[in-house]
Amino acid sequence: PAKKNWAETMKVRGYMQIRSNPIIGGDKDISHQADRSIGDNNNFLIRRMRLIFFGDIGERLSYYIQPDFASRTGDGTGNIAQLRDAYGDIYLTKDRVHRLRVGQSKIPYSFENLQSSQNRIALDRNDALNSCCKDERDLGVFYYYTPEDKQEMFKYLVDSGLKGSGNYGVFAFGAYNGTGANRAENNDNLHLVSRFTYPVKFENGQIFEAGIQGIYGTFKPSRSGTVVADSKTDGFKDQRVGVHAVLYPQPFGLQAEWNWGKGPSLNDAGTMIEETSLNGGYIQAMYRITDFFGYGVMLPFVKWQYYDGAQKFESNAPQNHVNDWEAGFEWQPVPEIEFTAYYSKLDRNNLATAPYSKYNTDILRFQLQYNF
Amino acid sequence: PAKKNWAETMKVRGYMQIRSNPIIGGDKDISHQADRSIGDNNNFLIRRMRLIFFGDIGERLSYYIQPDFASRTGDGTGNIAQLRDAYGDIYLTKDRVHRLRVGQSKIPYSFENLQSSQNRIALDRNDALNSCCKDERDLGVFYYYTPEDKQEMFKYLVDSGLKGSGNYGVFAFGAYNGTGANRAENNDNLHLVSRFTYPVKFENGQIFEAGIQGIYGTFKPSRSGTVVADSKTDGFKDQRVGVHAVLYPQPFGLQAEWNWGKGPSLNDAGTMIEETSLNGGYIQAMYRITDFFGYGVMLPFVKWQYYDGAQKFESNAPQNHVNDWEAGFEWQPVPEIEFTAYYSKLDRNNLATAPYSKYNTDILRFQLQYNF
Amino acid sequence: PAKKNWAETMKVRGYMQIRSNPIIGGDKDISHQADRSIGDNNNFLIRRMRLIFFGDIGERLSYYIQPDFASRTGDGTGNIAQLRDAYGDIYLTKDRVHRLRVGQSKIPYSFENLQSSQNRIALDRNDALNSCCKDERDLGVFYYYTPEDKQEMFKYLVDSGLKGSGNYGVFAFGAYNGTGANRAENNDNLHLVSRFTYPVKFENGQIFEAGIQGIYGTFKPSRSGTVVADSKTDGFKDQRVGVHAVLYPQPFGLQAEWNWGKGPSLNDAGTMIEETSLNGGYIQAMYRITDFFGYGVMLPFVKWQYYDGAQKFESNAPQNHVNDWEAGFEWQPVPEIEFTAYYSKLDRNNLATAPYSKYNTDILRFQLQYNF
Repeated sequence: PAKKNWAETMKVRGYMQIRSNPIIGGDKDISHQADRSIGDNNNFLIRRMRLIFFGDIGERLSYYIQPDFASRTGDGTGNIAQLRDAYGDIYLTKDRVHRLRVGQSKIPYSFENLQSSQNRIALDRNDALNSCCKDERDLGVFYYYTPEDKQEMFKYLVDSGLKGSGNYGVFAFGAYNGTGANRAENNDNLHLVSRFTYPVKFENGQIFEAGIQGIYGTFKPSRSGTVVADSKTDGFKDQRVGVHAVLYPQPFGLQAEWNWGKGPSLNDAGTMIEETSLNGGYIQAMYRITDFFGYGVMLPFVKWQYYDGAQKFESNAPQNHVNDWEAGFEWQPVPEIEFTAYYSKLDRNNLATAPYSKYNTDILRFQLQYNF
Repeated sequence: PAKKNWAETMKVRGYMQIRSNPIIGGDKDISHQADRSIGDNNNFLIRRMRLIFFGDIGERLSYYIQPDFASRTGDGTGNIAQLRDAYGDIYLTKDRVHRLRVGQSKIPYSFENLQSSQNRIALDRNDALNSCCKDERDLGVFYYYTPEDKQEMFKYLVDSGLKGSGNYGVFAFGAYNGTGANRAENNDNLHLVSRFTYPVKFENGQIFEAGIQGIYGTFKPSRSGTVVADSKTDGFKDQRVGVHAVLYPQPFGLQAEWNWGKGPSLNDAGTMIEETSLNGGYIQAMYRITDFFGYGVMLPFVKWQYYDGAQKFESNAPQNHVNDWEAGFEWQPVPEIEFTAYYSKLDRNNLATAPYSKYNTDILRFQLQYNF
Repeated sequence: PAKKNWAETMKVRGYMQIRSNPIIGGDKDISHQADRSIGDNNNFLIRRMRLIFFGDIGERLSYYIQPDFASRTGDGTGNIAQLRDAYGDIYLTKDRVHRLRVGQSKIPYSFENLQSSQNRIALDRNDALNSCCKDERDLGVFYYYTPEDKQEMFKYLVDSGLKGSGNYGVFAFGAYNGTGANRAENNDNLHLVSRFTYPVKFENGQIFEAGIQGIYGTFKPSRSGTVVADSKTDGFKDQRVGVHAVLYPQPFGLQAEWNWGKGPSLNDAGTMIEETSLNGGYIQAMYRITDFFGYGVMLPFVKWQYYDGAQKFESNAPQNHVNDWEAGFEWQPVPEIEFTAYYSKLDRNNLATAPYSKYNTDILRFQLQYNF
């Protein structure tokens, strides 16, 4: 056959999110690890600015390279390019049922973690499951098993606007560094992860998906100030089990997850990092109006989340006690433009600076997203 | 219609500038905030290395993503990718007369700020108007009004090589953070900007453009050492009004701007930042030879600039007193290669280190630019 | 002619390397300047993640922009985008025999430096010749002379999988900053480089290439702690001469280089940087099996390298005494996937921290590479 043009084996696409989060009540001296524009003295922020370079080469390789141009360096230089995804899928069988994903990619744990931020309704992921994984990603080797009919179904759930997770296998197993995306490994242990999920289509056409997942590893948090680490020089137990269930919004949808585990956590006195239990999750209801008075797609939603644990990726692994409510909508007047607006009642810890106090704050959240 | 290939809704282009600026007389211990290769112990520098990802999606959205790969982190790591532009144009009307630009983009203030560095003759912008805006850009929401005939004229002024500004509207109004491109907001105030400009074509075909613009905001400069801030904890008045007039080079051209305002400035003793008046501008004459003995396009020019104010984006907002002359040429042997060479007589302040002394230095400036 | 589509004058391609280097014997407290994942408490690393934007514009310009998305800032922020190559080739003659390369590009010194990491068998370059040039690259102006038949031969040696260097001219001459890729110049001296290489095809079809090269410059190393610099405030002599010879693997191949010179080096007491002699090189044997039992291309190899000198780009220019062995293979099951595995016996200095001790360590090296 004729040699292919490069633009046939590589494609480029992207998306961008611009936010503003005015405080309308409660404590003002706050910070939120998922969005730097939440807090006093803030206006606009570019939360994500992604370009994705991807394609298939031959019958054995797909690749996916996704830098984020809204990242920051440790010294605060803003809007620099840093990798999110950078991996290849090596197809062990040409029907793509069995494949190895090697590189930096999402860890197959939780449903919401795997669902793209481009598709998620709420602006940030829940803390309870998301705290497993820095930027949801890590560097390692992952095996995915996806029968051909489920390949089609996972694809349909994204392409149709039903806000699926994409294809992370019906069954997944992986081993990865465990320090988080873009961070150097700091111990000899690999983290292990496994996940099982199963989407089924009812006779009335509605799709339901449920599953279970677990992580097993050892984690060494960074420390600052005078905090000590309970003689765990090689790291703390970092173990979790989670369950998820999703009724896709056709038009009414429900989505819920919960996880339990143990991991490093700063003690109450703020002096020492110890091994502690954690648990938490969320439940979300949504309703998808595919023709909103002739002005595109409208998706009202309400979400409650709870977390009783710690944020191990922050310095000193501070405790995080979350009990948040969110209610609002996502509106897509045309597929390439999305506008999200909602009210959010925050009840959580300020993880940025000791003593990591609790705060109660009401904010509005606005996001404009471009898909291109 | 058939689904479009991705390379039809996204295009990629770029340009690159390599410089060398030998000192030929006067003070040697100098620095220039616009070009790090001006000064002792310097040779080549990549000043700009831009890739631009842009396109139209449907009838309502154009997007424009421009990282610069010659940026630096705060700790001096060189040639990293950092955003310059990242915005979408949302067309309120399908004739593109009314649009909202949301994201990080150029602030519609001044003519030279809006003219691309790819098209500007002088290697750096004038300090007087450019000091309004870090990297000419900020993050916010901008409304642009451009009648259809002016859309065509703005396009013609760039495409024809006449060094226009591009389409920033006949009328513009916007609100933005005010801390400068890629920098986190640090107060609750938004900056406001508005601009009116009008290009007209005379009967002999020559095009003339003139306009007026203003900025209104509050700015909180960063401080270092023992400098204090005159009890303005929420920021200083940051207000400017400017005028511009351009006779496009057909073949003889003239370009002039001036602005007046007030803003934060280090006092003479170097101990405290205060609110002070500022003013300054430039005038430039140029002559465009479209067929230079069969070797492309040649553009000799002379420029004088003056500024009596401060550089608010530098730590401590040091005073800057500028009185510079430049004279030389830009030569395009082929459209994809440009070579600029000129003599520059610098009379200005060293803004890099206290006591921010004045210097007088003669330099040569050379730049090679690739357009691709 | 019709205006070309942008995707005809720009192409994008890339490659990615993921590594793991388990220690199997000897000292564990080690580091290696060429691979941060060599050492204790390490697992996976993305060593290179390259995207390349390149093309021809008209008859006079080719351009080549290659950021690496696996770079780090000085403060350790990982997997950010930083330039490797960014240059244009300006063709002085339309037959491309004479050209100027201006920008950041590889310094024409050594064979292995010029050979792409995408094509090299051993995971890292030899220290003896590679220590001339930070990231093999610098910013400057280079003249290349390549007769038309040699243009074809250099292209063939890469395209055919014979692991050639690419076209860096039969004769090359250049001037460049000398501080290393992406680093600011720190003295007024330019480094000069010249190279001559000549590939010839024997009557049996086998290709042999040999050549000579030299560098002449002045280098100012960075210092830390209490180390002083022997009153060479303007920099130390930085001069080298090298020779190379390559018998391309058709199927048996041999490759060898050596260089001698002088440059800055920390003294034995670790107190002062002085001017010292250096020498070293490597020899590599390989065998290219083009049909490995129907499973792609297999390339076993063995390499020995020696260096007695210093690493001038590290702080304090520590001494480096290298005597390493490597033996293993590179396997390409399909052209887009490469897997390299080998045993490496390291005998060298830890350049990361004083007192820069010697270590002896046996490691295994694994790399998975995607070409897209």
